[in-house]
Amino acid sequence: MAETKKKMKIVVSLDLGPEVMPLLYNRDDLEIIAWPHASSSGKEWLVKNIAGADGCIIMLFEKIDDEVLDAAGPNLKVVSTMSVGYDHVDLKALAKRGVRLGNTPDVLTESVADSSVMLALMAGRNTKEGTNLVEKGQWPGWSWSPYGLCGPQISPNSPADIRTVGFIGFGRIAQATLARMIGFGYTRCLYVARSKDPARAADIEQTIKARHPTLTTVKRVELDELARESDVVYILAPGGSETYHIVDEKFLKQMKKTAVLVNNARGTLVDSDALAKALKEGWLWGAGLDVVEGEPNITADHPLVKEPRCVMIPHIGSATWESRIGMATMSVNNLFAGLERQPMVSEVQLPK
Amino acid sequence: MAETKKKMKIVVSLDLGPEVMPLLYNRDDLEIIAWPHASSSGKEWLVKNIAGADGCIIMLFEKIDDEVLDAAGPNLKVVSTMSVGYDHVDLKALAKRGVRLGNTPDVLTESVADSSVMLALMAGRNTKEGTNLVEKGQWPGWSWSPYGLCGPQISPNSPADIRTVGFIGFGRIAQATLARMIGFGYTRCLYVARSKDPARAADIEQTIKARHPTLTTVKRVELDELARESDVVYILAPGGSETYHIVDEKFLKQMKKTAVLVNNARGTLVDSDALAKALKEGWLWGAGLDVVEGEPNITADHPLVKEPRCVMIPHIGSATWESRIGMATMSVNNLFAGLERQPMVSEVQLPK
Repeated sequence: MAETKKKMKIVVSLDLGPEVMPLLYNRDDLEIIAWPHASSSGKEWLVKNIAGADGCIIMLFEKIDDEVLDAAGPNLKVVSTMSVGYDHVDLKALAKRGVRLGNTPDVLTESVADSSVMLALMAGRNTKEGTNLVEKGQWPGWSWSPYGLCGPQISPNSPADIRTVGFIGFGRIAQATLARMIGFGYTRCLYVARSKDPARAADIEQTIKARHPTLTTVKRVELDELARESDVVYILAPGGSETYHIVDEKFLKQMKKTAVLVNNARGTLVDSDALAKALKEGWLWGAGLDVVEGEPNITADHPLVKEPRCVMIPHIGSATWESRIGMATMSVNNLFAGLERQPMVSEVQLPK
Repeated sequence: MAETKKKMKIVVSLDLGPEVMPLLYNRDDLEIIAWPHASSSGKEWLVKNIAGADGCIIMLFEKIDDEVLDAAGPNLKVVSTMSVGYDHVDLKALAKRGVRLGNTPDVLTESVADSSVMLALMAGRNTKEGTNLVEKGQWPGWSWSPYGLCGPQISPNSPADIRTVGFIGFGRIAQATLARMIGFGYTRCLYVARSKDPARAADIEQTIKARHPTLTTVKRVELDELARESDVVYILAPGGSETYHIVDEKFLKQMKKTAVLVNNARGTLVDSDALAKALKEGWLWGAGLDVVEGEPNITADHPLVKEPRCVMIPHIGSATWESRIGMATMSVNNLFAGLERQPMVSEVQLPK
């Protein structure tokens, strides 16, 4: 029997790997145009190839805006991003064309929580100086001393010692990070959230305390109180204009001198210049960054790269096989749901 | 009233810092001979200065043997080491002279547990490569890709995913590390211990399970089973001849290819050549080392320093203000107890 139905065109801006690409290639009803390299294509390639596409799978590096959508034309039904965040996507531009957007939360919750705690520990414990000393062959000439490379202790040293963890954003990843901090002896949890509804805060407090009976405090607070009270501040909120530079000079000046700041969300939430100044002048102890404003154009002479107590990794907070294969698989399933006008595993609500 | 009593001579091989040195200097009955620099004195200075001493406070770097004890002479009542471990002290040589030995456990339990978990996370998540890439200014030229710098996930990604933590040595620090791993979703705990007493193992199982109800398994096993089953292996046992190269080629060959090894105990427990070979050939995923055989004489061309998945810090596992001030204070209190023939806060049992 001859195939009469026209194949749907799918543009994929990144190689989803040997476990996941077959999910696409095994479907006879799809024509797959895939960027063949390990890195993702960038916007230019996408614009060149997207004409007439029914759907596309993209990453953070492909900004989806009117230009891309105009190039795609009216067939486009779904954009599926292999990421949790979607500040690279113009939601209004999608909404006005009726194009749906899928993202890939949940499967990276645990991996990002792991790397968040790792960054907090590294920032507190002078790990950048310690590893560099060993790697540069300076260990033989380094004199161990009782207080050499000492840092503040992330965990309390006795039950009388109370530690507070603060979260900017209190979604799934923040709550998974909190679960880890319980084992480090944290008993107080503060958070800043978009919702100011007291009933919602009471509900969250009850749920979290039931889950973690050793917590004495679970409280939604204003930014100032979070800055003043927290021993570790985790930034785990979405990017975009609403959270732009939420951690600024004012916030950093209020932090404890022994506290550490972790940004595992988006670079735009932290004012990099203010953070570099804060670290240089000792307003806080250290910082652990998976993301930074202007990445990946961060050179060796960037003020944060030069700070000895600023640990930086290149946006690999979710880089585990488990998470990335999970995200890639979910991005394919979201695409399929979009093509077939079915509910997605995870769909972003677009503005009306 | 004239002071007639001869002062006791105390030799201190390291500067215990502004919080702790006054505990010594404020006592009129003591003559303090203290090494004035931040690093510790080493054995040679100690031998030169210890003649006639009643007590001394030392660190890992001052090997206490017949030579030192002969130089001290018969007045010596107490050696107080600012460390938990005491493989730098010849216990038999102390015992035959009736000199007591104090050490400083407990106050570094939490800081070492913190750094143990940090090293496990760093070893699993390609953090050495990630931080070096940023620090060398290679981020702009590095192409992000779905599986770039991916590692195995330390934590399980779903409840169906079972993770096992293995401990070589199951004392206070191991148990504090276990408490942290619970928050990362670990449900199985295996350990290797010196005691082969089944009643003791049953007792430990009951105690630990009562403390952590989510654990399904707490089991003393042989080394082979620990190597085969563990996703993270923590070495937290004393040094010395009994544990020399307990992690050797045979052990490493049995490990999971996705597992990580952490040594936060003493370098002698791990065969460095075997570990370098194992990492190069992929028998395990990565290693995190605070200690290494032959430290501090570890140069940049050491095979482990060159391994991209071997994270190394220069014996700073307990380097927090809380721990180190606590250790220094305890070393002084142990010294006082030794001089006054009182019970110490922590005294090492000497062989009969």
